[in-house]
Amino acid sequence: MREYAIGIFDSGLGGLTAVKEMIKVLPHEDIIYFGDTARVPYGNKSRSTIIRYAQQDAGFLLSKGVKMIIAACGTVSSVAAGLKNELPVPFTGVVFPTAHAAAKATRIKRIGVIGTSATVNSNSYKNEILRLDPECTVMQQDCPLFVSLVENSFISPEDPIVKLIVERYLSSMKEAGIDTLILGCTHFPIISKAISNYLGENVTLIDSGKETALYAANILKENDLLNKNTEPGACRYYVSDTVEDFRKTADIFLERSVGNEVSHINLEQVMVH
Amino acid sequence: MREYAIGIFDSGLGGLTAVKEMIKVLPHEDIIYFGDTARVPYGNKSRSTIIRYAQQDAGFLLSKGVKMIIAACGTVSSVAAGLKNELPVPFTGVVFPTAHAAAKATRIKRIGVIGTSATVNSNSYKNEILRLDPECTVMQQDCPLFVSLVENSFISPEDPIVKLIVERYLSSMKEAGIDTLILGCTHFPIISKAISNYLGENVTLIDSGKETALYAANILKENDLLNKNTEPGACRYYVSDTVEDFRKTADIFLERSVGNEVSHINLEQVMVH
Repeated sequence: MREYAIGIFDSGLGGLTAVKEMIKVLPHEDIIYFGDTARVPYGNKSRSTIIRYAQQDAGFLLSKGVKMIIAACGTVSSVAAGLKNELPVPFTGVVFPTAHAAAKATRIKRIGVIGTSATVNSNSYKNEILRLDPECTVMQQDCPLFVSLVENSFISPEDPIVKLIVERYLSSMKEAGIDTLILGCTHFPIISKAISNYLGENVTLIDSGKETALYAANILKENDLLNKNTEPGACRYYVSDTVEDFRKTADIFLERSVGNEVSHINLEQVMVH
Repeated sequence: MREYAIGIFDSGLGGLTAVKEMIKVLPHEDIIYFGDTARVPYGNKSRSTIIRYAQQDAGFLLSKGVKMIIAACGTVSSVAAGLKNELPVPFTGVVFPTAHAAAKATRIKRIGVIGTSATVNSNSYKNEILRLDPECTVMQQDCPLFVSLVENSFISPEDPIVKLIVERYLSSMKEAGIDTLILGCTHFPIISKAISNYLGENVTLIDSGKETALYAANILKENDLLNKNTEPGACRYYVSDTVEDFRKTADIFLERSVGNEVSHINLEQVMVH
């Protein structure tokens, strides 16, 4: 199975920030990405709907033959963590690796968590941090407009709209004096400069995509599943909405072109047949 | 068929602004509403995906027995206007009635159109206005962040975030001197005060939900399909995501409670069986 690809899925484009990090950490691995762009976003949906969608997404990746599955989506990782027990291959979401990195990074044990409403309401990051270190204080804030800002290219740290929304969402955390902030949604690294400018350089930002890539590399190593290939790995992308729209915006997240390696799949047909 | 309900659908909650107007215009009619909250929003999806979703939505309403179908969604009305030729009952979207009202309202023949990206890219309102009056000048602007503002309750006309985003999107139209603006998305009436404050009282705002309700009433009358009932009509709501989330936010759009008249349906199951 070592030659199989790593499967990564997300509700849309955000998970590409994790793909970018994975390529840095494990450049010889093949990657198959699925973005459920026909049903994005997941963050405003109910638990039961998110779980059903995540099962379908993982099922699609399995049908392509993967040796590991990563849910590179804060919402899915928070709400559908039970996937781990349903899959025949190793699985990780972003919550455990990211919470672990935050608990390690904080000096004064005051951590902030930002994400979609579904992520924050699940308390997933908070519970995981408190399990790792019960002495931590964890503050949470859902920031649904951050997703819209990124998806509509309102990303300049100098844009007054971006600055005002960052301030509105994060002022209580700033006053409370956190020293570590989990970016609990894969969209948020795109506006990390604006967040960092507002909170100041003493606050460490934890990027869920990066931490998860490092953690997944360890799992593959422990299970003797690393690809022995010495050539750069190949990336293949599947989306449930059109290829054109994906290709247009993917580079914001991936910082490279997806080229011709994108295919459309209709999840409804995959389910029926 | 006169006793059958009027079927109204939308990608989510926005279409409830049209339900509200319909109750005012035809208080004795029963209404069946379907909101595709498990797949909302449609405005950032591709044409082919929007058309497939709209066919499924209309199919669900037909299965409930309706005498007319209204797509109370700027995106569906713009992209899936072809539905009209596929359905066995009268159908209208919001584009024709709204474009008609705007062409009638403008004094200096300068009209603005705002909507989602899918709506604006389709040129649906623009083409319809120019068909009605080729001498009009039509300016268009997609305003995707307006949808996020409304859905996340950033709706106060005094909120500096709302004011800044309104200004960013509408400054060119203001400079160009339009005297009429089509609110081409059912979410936008919720922030019409902020829009109106910015553009000034000389600009007439056209509400697609209101114009469509008036137009649909005419179609029913012409087809002798008006309900002869003298009691207030009943409203029944179906959603594809959970009932609880719908109930919580529906009153922002409807300005009344949906009470217990909400049911969940799983469109995937409806499609398979």
